[in-house]
Order: sequence, then C-alpha cells, then structure tokens
Amino acid sequence: MEVRAVNIDQQLVDLTLGVWKSDIGRATKIFSDISDEELLREIGPGRNRLIYLLGHLTAVNDALFPLFGLGQQFYPEMHEAFITSPDRSPVQDGFSGEDLKHRWVDVNQALSLTFDKLSPSQWLEKHTAVSDEDFKREPSRNRFTVLLRRTGHLSYHLGQIATKR
Amino acid sequence: MEVRAVNIDQQLVDLTLGVWKSDIGRATKIFSDISDEELLREIGPGRNRLIYLLGHLTAVNDALFPLFGLGQQFYPEMHEAFITSPDRSPVQDGFSGEDLKHRWVDVNQALSLTFDKLSPSQWLEKHTAVSDEDFKREPSRNRFTVLLRRTGHLSYHLGQIATKR
Repeated sequence: MEVRAVNIDQQLVDLTLGVWKSDIGRATKIFSDISDEELLREIGPGRNRLIYLLGHLTAVNDALFPLFGLGQQFYPEMHEAFITSPDRSPVQDGFSGEDLKHRWVDVNQALSLTFDKLSPSQWLEKHTAVSDEDFKREPSRNRFTVLLRRTGHLSYHLGQIATKR
Repeated sequence: MEVRAVNIDQQLVDLTLGVWKSDIGRATKIFSDISDEELLREIGPGRNRLIYLLGHLTAVNDALFPLFGLGQQFYPEMHEAFITSPDRSPVQDGFSGEDLKHRWVDVNQALSLTFDKLSPSQWLEKHTAVSDEDFKREPSRNRFTVLLRRTGHLSYHLGQIATKR
C-alpha cells in the first residue's frame, strides 16, 4: 500500500475544514447555552439581536449548498428573513429561538458531510455566483475562498455575541 | 517554460494568505479611522477598550515571528502589556493610540513579507510552542493552523469593534 506522506494539498484542506468545524462547534455550544430570553438581547443599542444573528448565520451557511453547486438550501425562506431583511422585520415573526437552534445544527451537519467529500481541486473550482468569464480573470472566486470568508464571518459575529453574555 | 497549471498546494496557501492580508487591510483602515477619543470606548460596559484591542491584536501578530521560528518580536514589551495583562493595567500607560497604530502597520507589513517566502510544506511545519514528540501525535499544530486561527481571532475582535463605531 502506498503511503502518501506528503499529500500537502489534502493536508491544507483538512486543516482548513478542521478550523471551520471547530468554530461551528464552538458556536453551537454558545447558541445552545443562550436562553430564549437572552436571544432577545442586542449586541449594541439598536443593533442586531442575538436571535437575528443566529438566523443570519444559519441562512448564510445554508446558502453555501447552492453557492457551491452542491444541492438545495434546507430553508430557502430564511434568505429573505435573515439576509435580505434587517433585524426586527415582520418576516422574522414565524421563527422561534428553539427552531433556529435546530436549523443551525441541521444545516452545519449536512455541510460537514458534503465538505468532506470535496477534493482539493474541487475546492478550487468556481462557485455558482461567478461566470466562467469572470472566473478566468479572478480564479480566487472559488469554493475555498468562500469557506475561508465564511469562517471569518462566523468569528466576526461570535465576537459580538461574546460581549452580551 | 513549464506552466504549472495545477499547483494546488500553492494556490491553497496563496488564497489563505490573500484572505489574511485582506482582513489585515480592512483592520488597518478601521484603526486609521478611529480617533484617539474613540479608542477609549469600551466594546461593552466594563469590557475591553478599543485601544486595548489594537494593542492586543498587534502583540498577538508580533508574537508570530518567534512562534513560527522566523525571527524576533519587534515589540517584546507589548506581550506583558496586551496579552498577559487585562485592559486598564498600569503597564499600558506608556502606549499612545498613535504609536500603536504605527506598530500595527509595521508588524503586519513585516509579517506579510515573511509569509510570502514560505512554501506550502513550510506552512505545515510545526510551530515553536509544540515539542517534536507532541507534533508527531498532533501534526495539525503547525504554522498553517495558527495562521487560520489568527485570521479568525482578528475577525472576532473586528466584529466587536464594529459595534462601537
């Protein structure tokens, strides 16, 4: 059996996915510890409430399925509620904290399984929001860059949530 | 001339460094726009002031030189002031906002130049805070993982700073 000791590209992808999963796990722990009452706190006067950030992060991750060309969103109705619309919009009224916590877990578990199947070269393929022509000029508009950006986006909001707990 | 169209490992490293540099640039812009008076704001009642986060992020990045085995810190005295000590410690009295802004830029410019010289396999080498023995058991304790973690750490605090501007 061949031992691929220096499969550098796979190691780089595995490390990046490891950090993504670790941060998702940290966020899941934080969200599960936040009570329904605490979810209504704002990260600053007149700023987003924690429940909006939970919905926002879930919707943004859910959108990775179509953005990566790897399937449909679980909850397409969340796009308008938590990405297009600002916090305190009527369209958010139907979402409970408990429901959003479950959706957060469901989406990320499915993403993890999907991500694990991608090869390093597949991570470098273009995402669906860029045309073939634009991708030739800007090859960095690929799945891997989006993964890095989404990991940073999660940290950005976790930092805000940490100030309210 | 050989065209290396599928140098996947180098592309993955370049993309990761691209995101790091982009986030550093975003932070530099934010810090340069913050007045000395604004730097004294807290991210929450009794929480860190922005000036502390500026010093903290600078000291954490400066520490990457020795952690990566790539040189000395520029400002070793900042370790005690902004990593070991909490905000509002007397040891921070000697640091002005203007001085810290310059240090932030100096450290990151030098880091960028240093990072650009590392090959993908060098990114996978162990950092200096892990022993050879531990590294055999935990090969993820390498420079690349630290780079990913530090990028997330920066986003975490930028999210907090955004709530105060």
